Amino acid sequence: MATARATPARRGRPGYDLESLLAVAVKVFNERGYEATSMEDLSRRLGITKSAIYHHVSGKDELLRLAVDRALDGLSEAAEEAAAMEGRAIDRLEHLVRRSVHVLVERLPFVTLLLRVRGNTKVERQALARRRAFDHLAGELVRQAEAEGDIRPDVDPAVVSRLLFGLVNSVTEWYRPRGGMGAAALAEAVCKIAFDGLRRRPSEDVTSPTG
Amino acid sequence: MATARATPARRGRPGYDLESLLAVAVKVFNERGYEATSMEDLSRRLGITKSAIYHHVSGKDELLRLAVDRALDGLSEAAEEAAAMEGRAIDRLEHLVRRSVHVLVERLPFVTLLLRVRGNTKVERQALARRRAFDHLAGELVRQAEAEGDIRPDVDPAVVSRLLFGLVNSVTEWYRPRGGMGAAALAEAVCKIAFDGLRRRPSEDVTSPTG
Repeated sequence: MATARATPARRGRPGYDLESLLAVAVKVFNERGYEATSMEDLSRRLGITKSAIYHHVSGKDELLRLAVDRALDGLSEAAEEAAAMEGRAIDRLEHLVRRSVHVLVERLPFVTLLLRVRGNTKVERQALARRRAFDHLAGELVRQAEAEGDIRPDVDPAVVSRLLFGLVNSVTEWYRPRGGMGAAALAEAVCKIAFDGLRRRPSEDVTSPTG
Repeated sequence: MATARATPARRGRPGYDLESLLAVAVKVFNERGYEATSMEDLSRRLGITKSAIYHHVSGKDELLRLAVDRALDGLSEAAEEAAAMEGRAIDRLEHLVRRSVHVLVERLPFVTLLLRVRGNTKVERQALARRRAFDHLAGELVRQAEAEGDIRPDVDPAVVSRLLFGLVNSVTEWYRPRGGMGAAALAEAVCKIAFDGLRRRPSEDVTSPTG
């Protein structure tokens, strides 16, 4: 496997490209908290100088923005897909839940960071605004599904929506990609538990569509 | 309404008893993060000197221990009740979920703090050990309920348990006591959504027991 030729993949070491720098920064933010992490901390962890970090980004704030946008872009795409789908609201809602679980699994550190954002800075407030837009769409789907008679009428749609995406988001608390369970299986489990509760069953043998 | 007599209720001001001091400390921990909060921060927020705080507790660590124990004691009681109940595991599991929601609502700031504990200090590790004991019991109930044929067999019991208590814990992210919804109604909504998904239905009209 080893060859006498210099491997081009190693050029640039021990530097980082923006992507790998972002990955480490997000890891540190999630471990220590964004507020509690200084550029000094990042510099130490990355093993490069602060000015080497500033070569890539204007500061901690830009790292946060890039990270939460990574999560939010995935969730927005899921929401746009669900909004553009034909068919009943309950099926579009299930699609949104399923796709959201995929985004969580595939962008886990970014979503974890997003869910901890509390709105202390402009970047954080922008992230919260995008989260609210997502929540609004999800809430609309729940209300529409209830209007279409597909969701149990005895739970307040606003509460259904909170609990449903609370369930989805709770996955960030325990899911580890190396645990063996894939995104599809996890999304399936979430939908089975959530929607067999939400969806009215015309008969005992009807299970929720999983497509 | 005003009387000429001094009101005994005011004696002691502007001091705090341990309970009111703990309430403020937990609020600050939840806002700023436990790690990021110094005794100096607490002193400023309480409007009393650090030595006045040390009159009540040995330090930040003891405040954390008192706070998380408040949450854990509630959850342990719920677990002991569920363990001592007669009857099917699914009903004991539902009782545990319902009581856990009550504990969350009634001890919201304490549970919120508990759920953020990551194990950096001895107090935090002890709290995590108590959480694991709770999770173990919940997991046992899920496995037993599946063995008794009351839970859908197509989702891994370990995942069911994670998702079920992920759903319960997610309530701390959005629930506000002044929002109007009481603990009983919230527990009911959680159980309806979770258990109508988990519980096999012998017929369309059978709904989960809510007693």
